[in-house]
Amino acid sequence: MNKKKIINDPVHGFITIPSEFIFDLIEHPYFQRLRRIRQLGLAQYVYPGAVHTRFHHAIGAMHITQIAIETLRNKGHEISATEEEAVSAAILLHDIGHGPFSHALEHTLVAHLKHEEISMMIMEKINESMGGALNMAIEIFKNVYPKKFLHQLVSSQLDMDRLDYLARDSFFTGVSEGIISSERILKMLNVFDDKLVIDAKGIYSVEKFIVARRLMYWQVYLHKTVLAAENQLINTLKRARYLTAKGHDLFGTKSFKIFLKNNFTSKDFKQQPHLIDEFCLLDDFDIFTSIKEWMTHDDFILSHLCKGLIDRNLFKIKLQEKSFTQQETENYLKKAVKAYNITEEEASSLAFTGKIENSAYTKSQENINILFKDNVIKDIADASDNLSISALSKPVVKHYLCVDSGCL
Amino acid sequence: MNKKKIINDPVHGFITIPSEFIFDLIEHPYFQRLRRIRQLGLAQYVYPGAVHTRFHHAIGAMHITQIAIETLRNKGHEISATEEEAVSAAILLHDIGHGPFSHALEHTLVAHLKHEEISMMIMEKINESMGGALNMAIEIFKNVYPKKFLHQLVSSQLDMDRLDYLARDSFFTGVSEGIISSERILKMLNVFDDKLVIDAKGIYSVEKFIVARRLMYWQVYLHKTVLAAENQLINTLKRARYLTAKGHDLFGTKSFKIFLKNNFTSKDFKQQPHLIDEFCLLDDFDIFTSIKEWMTHDDFILSHLCKGLIDRNLFKIKLQEKSFTQQETENYLKKAVKAYNITEEEASSLAFTGKIENSAYTKSQENINILFKDNVIKDIADASDNLSISALSKPVVKHYLCVDSGCL
Amino acid sequence: MNKKKIINDPVHGFITIPSEFIFDLIEHPYFQRLRRIRQLGLAQYVYPGAVHTRFHHAIGAMHITQIAIETLRNKGHEISATEEEAVSAAILLHDIGHGPFSHALEHTLVAHLKHEEISMMIMEKINESMGGALNMAIEIFKNVYPKKFLHQLVSSQLDMDRLDYLARDSFFTGVSEGIISSERILKMLNVFDDKLVIDAKGIYSVEKFIVARRLMYWQVYLHKTVLAAENQLINTLKRARYLTAKGHDLFGTKSFKIFLKNNFTSKDFKQQPHLIDEFCLLDDFDIFTSIKEWMTHDDFILSHLCKGLIDRNLFKIKLQEKSFTQQETENYLKKAVKAYNITEEEASSLAFTGKIENSAYTKSQENINILFKDNVIKDIADASDNLSISALSKPVVKHYLCVDSGCL
Amino acid sequence: MNKKKIINDPVHGFITIPSEFIFDLIEHPYFQRLRRIRQLGLAQYVYPGAVHTRFHHAIGAMHITQIAIETLRNKGHEISATEEEAVSAAILLHDIGHGPFSHALEHTLVAHLKHEEISMMIMEKINESMGGALNMAIEIFKNVYPKKFLHQLVSSQLDMDRLDYLARDSFFTGVSEGIISSERILKMLNVFDDKLVIDAKGIYSVEKFIVARRLMYWQVYLHKTVLAAENQLINTLKRARYLTAKGHDLFGTKSFKIFLKNNFTSKDFKQQPHLIDEFCLLDDFDIFTSIKEWMTHDDFILSHLCKGLIDRNLFKIKLQEKSFTQQETENYLKKAVKAYNITEEEASSLAFTGKIENSAYTKSQENINILFKDNVIKDIADASDNLSISALSKPVVKHYLCVDSGCL
Repeated sequence: MNKKKIINDPVHGFITIPSEFIFDLIEHPYFQRLRRIRQLGLAQYVYPGAVHTRFHHAIGAMHITQIAIETLRNKGHEISATEEEAVSAAILLHDIGHGPFSHALEHTLVAHLKHEEISMMIMEKINESMGGALNMAIEIFKNVYPKKFLHQLVSSQLDMDRLDYLARDSFFTGVSEGIISSERILKMLNVFDDKLVIDAKGIYSVEKFIVARRLMYWQVYLHKTVLAAENQLINTLKRARYLTAKGHDLFGTKSFKIFLKNNFTSKDFKQQPHLIDEFCLLDDFDIFTSIKEWMTHDDFILSHLCKGLIDRNLFKIKLQEKSFTQQETENYLKKAVKAYNITEEEASSLAFTGKIENSAYTKSQENINILFKDNVIKDIADASDNLSISALSKPVVKHYLCVDSGCL
Repeated sequence: MNKKKIINDPVHGFITIPSEFIFDLIEHPYFQRLRRIRQLGLAQYVYPGAVHTRFHHAIGAMHITQIAIETLRNKGHEISATEEEAVSAAILLHDIGHGPFSHALEHTLVAHLKHEEISMMIMEKINESMGGALNMAIEIFKNVYPKKFLHQLVSSQLDMDRLDYLARDSFFTGVSEGIISSERILKMLNVFDDKLVIDAKGIYSVEKFIVARRLMYWQVYLHKTVLAAENQLINTLKRARYLTAKGHDLFGTKSFKIFLKNNFTSKDFKQQPHLIDEFCLLDDFDIFTSIKEWMTHDDFILSHLCKGLIDRNLFKIKLQEKSFTQQETENYLKKAVKAYNITEEEASSLAFTGKIENSAYTKSQENINILFKDNVIKDIADASDNLSISALSKPVVKHYLCVDSGCL
Repeated sequence: MNKKKIINDPVHGFITIPSEFIFDLIEHPYFQRLRRIRQLGLAQYVYPGAVHTRFHHAIGAMHITQIAIETLRNKGHEISATEEEAVSAAILLHDIGHGPFSHALEHTLVAHLKHEEISMMIMEKINESMGGALNMAIEIFKNVYPKKFLHQLVSSQLDMDRLDYLARDSFFTGVSEGIISSERILKMLNVFDDKLVIDAKGIYSVEKFIVARRLMYWQVYLHKTVLAAENQLINTLKRARYLTAKGHDLFGTKSFKIFLKNNFTSKDFKQQPHLIDEFCLLDDFDIFTSIKEWMTHDDFILSHLCKGLIDRNLFKIKLQEKSFTQQETENYLKKAVKAYNITEEEASSLAFTGKIENSAYTKSQENINILFKDNVIKDIADASDNLSISALSKPVVKHYLCVDSGCL
Repeated sequence: MNKKKIINDPVHGFITIPSEFIFDLIEHPYFQRLRRIRQLGLAQYVYPGAVHTRFHHAIGAMHITQIAIETLRNKGHEISATEEEAVSAAILLHDIGHGPFSHALEHTLVAHLKHEEISMMIMEKINESMGGALNMAIEIFKNVYPKKFLHQLVSSQLDMDRLDYLARDSFFTGVSEGIISSERILKMLNVFDDKLVIDAKGIYSVEKFIVARRLMYWQVYLHKTVLAAENQLINTLKRARYLTAKGHDLFGTKSFKIFLKNNFTSKDFKQQPHLIDEFCLLDDFDIFTSIKEWMTHDDFILSHLCKGLIDRNLFKIKLQEKSFTQQETENYLKKAVKAYNITEEEASSLAFTGKIENSAYTKSQENINILFKDNVIKDIADASDNLSISALSKPVVKHYLCVDSGCL
């Protein structure tokens, strides 16, 4: 096969594309689009190295899946060549429905659909054009394929997605505490009773993985400046939609304008199949180019938010355990009204509160199971020889207050 | 000082911003623009990790300069606090004149000026607005400041720019052979007779540095697929200029259109100071967003080239030591004419030849000097205990032929 | 100063020896001895890379101390040049009293003294010979120096010793989960109310540090095979002492024989000052050379244990949470008696039980304090936004049963 | 197979022992002995991290061989399971004949035999005890097996031995310039015409490998302080032999004394098969323990040399391109005679000259061949697009003068 390519990956070393079929998926324009979507959205405002793409992550997760399969086979679990290809395709495409700056998009441009649904629709569209070649991959993705552990490789609390993104995001941000020993966890993977489990020897590595993930959440994904920037982006897009609805013709690519003007539902996507094509033309470039151009728009709120994003003059943000009082917010709203001579409604784009939440580990259905020598399996929270994981299962909630720096 | 910030860098670890002044330069919108310009342009088509920005590189080079200054001071060379700040500013801003996808830009959008000249103009504009605070930095940059070795830190064959970009490009591409031990080279830096030199103990590290740089040239910067992609981008922009000149109004941001329509000279920039502002609004986002939109343009050549760039259907390329014969090129031109029903002139955008050249080391003015114990200094090519560096001084020339894959 | 040397360290990069005084301490034969004592004793039976020495660790800890001091000074805390040198000397010498295979030694050769006491005696002896130059270092070591936080750099739950050994032991074993971001923790160091504290921003790094340390304990330091090997070594030395006491003249260096024959007390060391010199001649080489030679000794127990150590035929070991029953042990004792035709007392060297214990974190006196913005300090166990650290404070106890492989 | 073990290697990550047979070889006491022999002898006096063992290196080289075989098979070259095991065994055992501090030993203790001959004898002895299981491995080692490329994996200018030791020695010394991208070179391995070759794409990696190796020679293996230490050790052993010959009974293990007293030839080893057993009891521990004990010996030369080695008071050494004049040496000899009141003959142990030589690359038989697309193979020196490799083929010779620091 002359399509057996090697890709350099600073995180995992050389990655070999395992088959022509996988290679063709990577070559597909829908997948190539992921080259233009950054994995961590606006985190680069805090971590300048965090400019890696979803394209790279998806290939990395596929690579890790290959290693997992080899390990499971070595331990005597049968996985056919077809199943290997299907699970590799499923992991490769699991995030293909992400739009530019995922959160912003999910809250504004395609507010009625989650990215998982869009991933599903895109996979089905590719499947059609490939004559059903993705059938098994889709079954695994939907968790209707008989071997349930294959789905757990794609989606669970210790799936290949997480193993790759933790390693990758640590690498590119430079937050070395996020480094996990995926190599060791992979060696400890096993299957018992059609469940993906971890051999008991790997228990400390799993504990470390959970703590590392928690750290990455608070130090990177939910870093307060990143939160501020994301909110600034969301408010920008909301304002752009608002102005569009009022008849303004904002600068933008054709596809971007379609999503600014409409708020499509699942039904719309089904009735207008070309919408998937339009969606797949959207990426970070559309958004940021428009934001640059909008810096000179007549609408003060829009241009002000855009200038802040481009020149990195972001909202000031305060994080705390208690929720903020109405009084606190109102003080800032009034300052904004005064500072910029705007209405209170307009001011609410510049001063507002919100809430974030994260659980390091959940004893939910797709939990992490540890396999002991006597073929007993236990949830990691119970298997650990002290109560720390159990303690980590409690969700942490934080409240934030964002304020435009001009109204402090 | 409450502006003393720390920046995470996966390449060098934590970087401390040394002063308020440097912090203010980093905050400047002209500098923030570098967040939106990738250091290696289209190399990400081959090395998906190579999406790091000129912003990150400039800060990394500034950090390395800090270490160099500390080493030189420890060896008894006087460098005042003002000089330290000036040389740090000079290195920080040395590449600020780079446009999107530097090469493409230099050949098409601003063909009459080199990026160094634009860097100079931008520095002078910032200097004005800061009341002359960059005077000394500009003198060092222009090499008119008395202590000549400070200029060599900014620009020479072993400058801080190269030390950073080799380390950084290796890191993000994953081409581990490009890794250099900048830490050791920095420890070996010295000054003799107002020249930047390397202590004799560092001779093997310098040899390794030269070989690593040569390797990065052929394996990354001049990788054949990267060359093909860059030529595809150049031809795209040339076609866009041609259509603009013929009266077409192509999609694009205001600033981008200005540079598509005109071909400014140094004189133009002097007479119309606002051009610098327009230039500083240009980045990778303008270019790629337009290319996406141009995929559906009526002009076949333009839309064809753009589709190729977006879907990664790049020119096929052949590299060889001899130049290609006219016959070879013409064969492909004819095939293109036939395949796409276009004129031969149009076909010349889809099949053409070119030439690249690289010297691993040049015994030019800003050469690398080795300081021996008896205060003798020798050029590295003469200092090495065999003739390999001397051999590496010979430039290597390669010829290439690019052909659209549809006319093979 | 021409003694300003640079030492290559794969863990921290280049280490600069900060002063002539520190250099002279490193040159001292008592300190050079640490080149011949491995940091992790017999862990190399499991992790072949774990052959690094206490010499390297001590210098690494000294280097980290330098960084800590620089950070604290940058935050406005006064530390004089003399104090810097004293605390550096204290950390450099803090472990100088370790003997070969520390545990084995502490249980057998110098059973009446802890290594800390011996460190103290050696420091005092060097101090005499240097005319009191170590006075302040000794005060800091003993925690009688007024600035208490200096002692905490040398000895606390987040001291420079731990920061170095976790990083170093991870590096050399290849257990990458043990990697901690010491760089970040160091940047977060602060002093409040004469206590060493961590700025609140570093809280997740500290959590990670505690979990990493716990992992290293169970995966490396208390790894079951390492435990088995250490017990085999301890029993070997006990047997050698027993035979010596019975009049056998075992092969060994002069110094080794002295410690085989006697069991010195603190008082002995004071009355016979030359004992320190004899002690400082002991290292891993004496022990292992004798063990090789003893493989052919007439005494079955001794030669059998020695052969096992040299040929890596180690005790089989079982680890569990409950203690073992007397019955279980006795079964194995009987098998040993039968297999080797030995007495039950002799068999007790080949089948026996024991207990290990480890706390990831203790809310003791030298606890880890977090400094919040409003100058409130809290214990890390209380400061963490969930209860995991608190849960990690509970000590974990495990029981083991070691059995010679010949009597299974 | 329950012997399928995993070994942690900080250099290559997890290493899987490929078969029971290989596992049994590793368990063999002759192989376990390599745990007690440092790979880089006395280099730890300069690079404290360089304490890794020949045990670890041999296993690393075996691991790399596994990767090479997988690559070659993927490229369509047939290698049977038996051949795989044989070549793995051959590389594992290739250095098993190394004695303690190889050079010192080869010059003094077993002066009539090279370590390769001893390796051969040990392999044959193991082979006997295993009923011929090593037959094919020995044929490959001796280069009499039909598939010649298998021998080249074990021994050539780009063999698995070199790939491992360069990577490993860089890692443990911390000399990061020595890092090679063995992963990439391995991916480029190919076989043509029964010769091991490198695909043309890998040419820059090979260049880099040659330069890295040259750098490691001058910066580590032939570092002047390492040379001084090795000469001090050689002179120590020579003196010990001389005293033994004169009837002194020096402290030492039984095996060590045998080799101090005799100077065995190849014939002796054949006639007295037990000598191999005695040899396999010798390691770094015997030598250094004796040196410590000899510090108090009556013979001034012996005790003086030993004290220097233990307390790191090493010869001063000067390196230059020209040879030293007799006059220079004699001056120092006279000083030594005077300073220590010794004879001129005795003084020759304390002041003497020598010569070292290294070629970065040799166009000899086991050269490095590059395979071009048209199935042309060229020597790397001719294949490189400039003359640097060719220049590196010239051997570099340096002369040294060692002098005891007491007679300067």
